[in-house]
Amino acid sequence: MNKKQALKIYRDQNEKIAAYGLMLATAGFDRMTIAPIGGASYRNRMLSIIQGELFELETDKDYVQAILTLSEMDLGEVGNRDISLAKKSLEDVLKFTKEETMEYSYALMNAYDAWYKAKTSENYEIFRPHLMKLIEMTKYRAKKRDAKKDPYDLLLDDFEEGMNRKKYDEFFSLIRKELLPLIRKIDKKKGYIDDSFLYKYYPAEKQALFMKDAMKYLGFSSDWGYMGTTEHPFTSGFSKNDVRVTTNYDEHNVTAAIYSLIHECGHAFYEHQVDAKYEKYPHIRNMSSGMHESQSRFFENYLGRRRSFFVKLYPRLQELFPENLGNVSLDDFIKAANVSKCSLIRTDADELTYPVHILIRYELEKEIFSGKADLDKLDQLWDEKYEKYLGIKAQKPSDGILQDVHWSEAYIGYFPTYALGSAIGAQLFHKMKEDLDVDALLEKGQFKKITDYLHKNVQHDGALYTFEQIVKRATGEDFDPHYYIDYLKEKYKALYNIK
Amino acid sequence: MNKKQALKIYRDQNEKIAAYGLMLATAGFDRMTIAPIGGASYRNRMLSIIQGELFELETDKDYVQAILTLSEMDLGEVGNRDISLAKKSLEDVLKFTKEETMEYSYALMNAYDAWYKAKTSENYEIFRPHLMKLIEMTKYRAKKRDAKKDPYDLLLDDFEEGMNRKKYDEFFSLIRKELLPLIRKIDKKKGYIDDSFLYKYYPAEKQALFMKDAMKYLGFSSDWGYMGTTEHPFTSGFSKNDVRVTTNYDEHNVTAAIYSLIHECGHAFYEHQVDAKYEKYPHIRNMSSGMHESQSRFFENYLGRRRSFFVKLYPRLQELFPENLGNVSLDDFIKAANVSKCSLIRTDADELTYPVHILIRYELEKEIFSGKADLDKLDQLWDEKYEKYLGIKAQKPSDGILQDVHWSEAYIGYFPTYALGSAIGAQLFHKMKEDLDVDALLEKGQFKKITDYLHKNVQHDGALYTFEQIVKRATGEDFDPHYYIDYLKEKYKALYNIK
Repeated sequence: MNKKQALKIYRDQNEKIAAYGLMLATAGFDRMTIAPIGGASYRNRMLSIIQGELFELETDKDYVQAILTLSEMDLGEVGNRDISLAKKSLEDVLKFTKEETMEYSYALMNAYDAWYKAKTSENYEIFRPHLMKLIEMTKYRAKKRDAKKDPYDLLLDDFEEGMNRKKYDEFFSLIRKELLPLIRKIDKKKGYIDDSFLYKYYPAEKQALFMKDAMKYLGFSSDWGYMGTTEHPFTSGFSKNDVRVTTNYDEHNVTAAIYSLIHECGHAFYEHQVDAKYEKYPHIRNMSSGMHESQSRFFENYLGRRRSFFVKLYPRLQELFPENLGNVSLDDFIKAANVSKCSLIRTDADELTYPVHILIRYELEKEIFSGKADLDKLDQLWDEKYEKYLGIKAQKPSDGILQDVHWSEAYIGYFPTYALGSAIGAQLFHKMKEDLDVDALLEKGQFKKITDYLHKNVQHDGALYTFEQIVKRATGEDFDPHYYIDYLKEKYKALYNIK
Repeated sequence: MNKKQALKIYRDQNEKIAAYGLMLATAGFDRMTIAPIGGASYRNRMLSIIQGELFELETDKDYVQAILTLSEMDLGEVGNRDISLAKKSLEDVLKFTKEETMEYSYALMNAYDAWYKAKTSENYEIFRPHLMKLIEMTKYRAKKRDAKKDPYDLLLDDFEEGMNRKKYDEFFSLIRKELLPLIRKIDKKKGYIDDSFLYKYYPAEKQALFMKDAMKYLGFSSDWGYMGTTEHPFTSGFSKNDVRVTTNYDEHNVTAAIYSLIHECGHAFYEHQVDAKYEKYPHIRNMSSGMHESQSRFFENYLGRRRSFFVKLYPRLQELFPENLGNVSLDDFIKAANVSKCSLIRTDADELTYPVHILIRYELEKEIFSGKADLDKLDQLWDEKYEKYLGIKAQKPSDGILQDVHWSEAYIGYFPTYALGSAIGAQLFHKMKEDLDVDALLEKGQFKKITDYLHKNVQHDGALYTFEQIVKRATGEDFDPHYYIDYLKEKYKALYNIK
């Protein structure tokens, strides 16, 4: 097989694989948003058949040979990176039989359905057996993929190339050492900032009207994006010009949906702004979790929680909810939107306590893999960690172990990228503020200048580089979590008037 | 290949084909409801790849052999019917290459997108080249499938087994002869019934609230069904317990969405009420268009336009729109909902003029195939027919040739089943009234007794029988369109006090 032949096989087969990928993405989005539960068992069985078909394509003899052939050749920077990622993924796929692959995908879909049912009916027992099965399968699969490597290290690297327990241990010990003391101090100043007006009654329909304006402000267009609702908000990039975000309205918390949606829009812009030229390089379009979170939390926090971000938007919010916000100034609204408190729900957490929610999940996952955790008591372990670090305890499972969707999808090793992403975002934001007058742009509603900056400096090359390379290219410096720590300490000390 | 082997191959392959079918149904529903237009070109290309994959499955050597083998054997009533339909469909598929199949599906998707764009921008020119191409392809394909058979007869039989021009000519000449004179008489009594209150301002959100109650009344459950919105309302049965209906709100016509939704629910119940035992017989689950329309129009008209149907529902409608309906009695509302007038939009047409809308399309389709129609002037021909039969002319293309989605999907030969279905429905309704006290059940809100009756007498066997057989089994008589004619004449003469 020569280079030309190998390239043709590789590209033709990739296009087919992409077609299956789009089908599965569409079906996945459908089942997580609107599909009737009655059709789940038939649907999940059919979807696992398609997973089996996809397995056949991914392990096709000629395709495998093409990847191996190309991996020995010089295809230029983009081609080399794409093939090296293709080869890595191939090696993993080949470790399993078609039956195992179908069984795994079937188990995942059933676990998601069970999680949804368990969460909405406040009954962990519905989800427990599925979670246990997924943990077992995840351990089995990790071992089968690389018996020599620590399985949790393998998973951490899956979600963020180059990361492992050692690096995350260092990162989280910094969080523990630098942020926990500040969190405790602020906890003692409970009530220092009034945020009670955020929790009045805010009808979902009116929130939805505000979202329309907020999306417009961000430049999210229905030409290339769609917004739906779901139990656990997420973003799904079907293609460059078809990106779906979802949200979920809490009628007694006006900022919950706002920040969740701004967050998802950060993901959406990343998916949308990767250069079209990479369509032929599927693995370049596959951005890492940490980088993705750096962009979503960039939108949500580094931009979305600034006063300047709301200069254009706040009047609209007041207009929609005059009885709740008519007498609340923009300054007071922003202060309230930045209140730090020890709370139970990760997705609603403020910037300062957020990494502690991740630390808890990271410790639990490590203990699951080390064997230290008693899996029968995982829900209790969850609650104990919250008590230890944040001094509070869930009164119902939807506030505890059932709050997040991720474990139901076997996204184990994924949570740490949320905190890592926040840290990457802080460093990128520090540089952006040197390059642009961010507040002036936000106040003038010139959000496009900001998304253009992100496109040019961070997003357009997709996964051509690792997160460490992207940070270096964008800022000229190595990744350094102290930007994150310093940002949080400075911001919250000022907000709470702490020396 | 013995019977056991053949059956195993047939069933295993059918399950795979069903998985692809579900994927394509999901993607189709997605593109017609929420998918951003920016992703269309990528999406359509990917979907046509999947169509190509499906073609490979449907023409697989062993599968073909299995069907041929089984078609020579006795598999019992259900098996024989299923295989005979499978063989018929196989013979058609085999007439085309994979490339032709992919090209055709790609053309269909692009035509739909163009139709949508043309309709929403009132520009027929956007759609014209696509329509011309589809007509050409449809002619080519019909000829290739059976060079000896008249191509339009072939299409008519596709959508309703056993039908052809001769039978439809008779049917429509009955419509022409029996109904046109009555339509003319009623046209002269314009304003005899006041229906102006139906066209006041009815906000979509409030209409949606009414729909929730109407769906509940009908017994449409979110456990097995979902309701979305779209440009042209339709129903898509993904599986027995996953049926999707869509609707579209006109804020200046309160009954438009109501009757459209009741109509779609008729389709939905048919999809839902086919017995689960036919899951293994894919062709039995594939109900004919005329039978489907008999059920949708059964809900919409024979039930939905009765006074008794609204006894439970009308108070809710008044409650939601007190300013428009507070002083309108149920009797006056029902009279208004049954007003007959010569209008431009088929889907909003009353029962009496409805078949004339179909007659117009039937004549146009015949002329397209006979060569009599000047295809360059198809939009003008459309308008001329409306002027000839209904005395009115569209002022914009969305009221004329662009109003219906069907030709953009190459559903040519499909429209006649709408009128045929109405006639089938009338006969089934006549029998149901002999068996049940329909009005008493509706007034008491016991809609389930009606859907149970339809399940038992009409729906549960799916496409095991032809429409003629189903009518015979349900009523004990041969299909007879005079039930339809008599129903309409009697109803409208009484309503308009015509001797």
